[in-house]
Amino acid sequence: MINQNWIGLLAGTLTTMAFVPQVYRIWQRKHADDISASMFIIFITGVALWLYYGLMLQAWPIIIANAITLVLASVILFLKYYYQKTGQHDGE
Amino acid sequence: MINQNWIGLLAGTLTTMAFVPQVYRIWQRKHADDISASMFIIFITGVALWLYYGLMLQAWPIIIANAITLVLASVILFLKYYYQKTGQHDGE
Repeated sequence: MINQNWIGLLAGTLTTMAFVPQVYRIWQRKHADDISASMFIIFITGVALWLYYGLMLQAWPIIIANAITLVLASVILFLKYYYQKTGQHDGE
Repeated sequence: MINQNWIGLLAGTLTTMAFVPQVYRIWQRKHADDISASMFIIFITGVALWLYYGLMLQAWPIIIANAITLVLASVILFLKYYYQKTGQHDGE
């Protein structure tokens, strides 16, 4: 029987690292108009709450995964606004 | 002292529902080139593992949140490929 902690650790690593290719794609294209700002604002709020939840439980896997996700998701939101101001965009 | 279960429930609701505005934005613009397919492939794999993790623990909040996220993230990935085939795109 596979140990559930390994499943949780792998799941957390994947759902955290998944944001790295999105950061790279926006940086590479200098363009993020298709990205929904409201998605990332809501998502960042949720991840911050997961971080708070992890701190309450002193559950380090939850703390670490959500701290990294918080940084990556915030970078995406920042890049979206940055390229909206400076980069090429559809101007809709 | 705020009950941590409420924090977890709210966090899970936000990080799940966050994907709805992204689905809407892609559907509205018929365009998803800025979205990273690898992000969603990795993310969907992670969410599927979280779902499996929740089933192992019989933890219903984890099961429900990740089942909904799995559907929403899969819709985003589907729409990305669908509009890549049919919609306007930068063709880079």
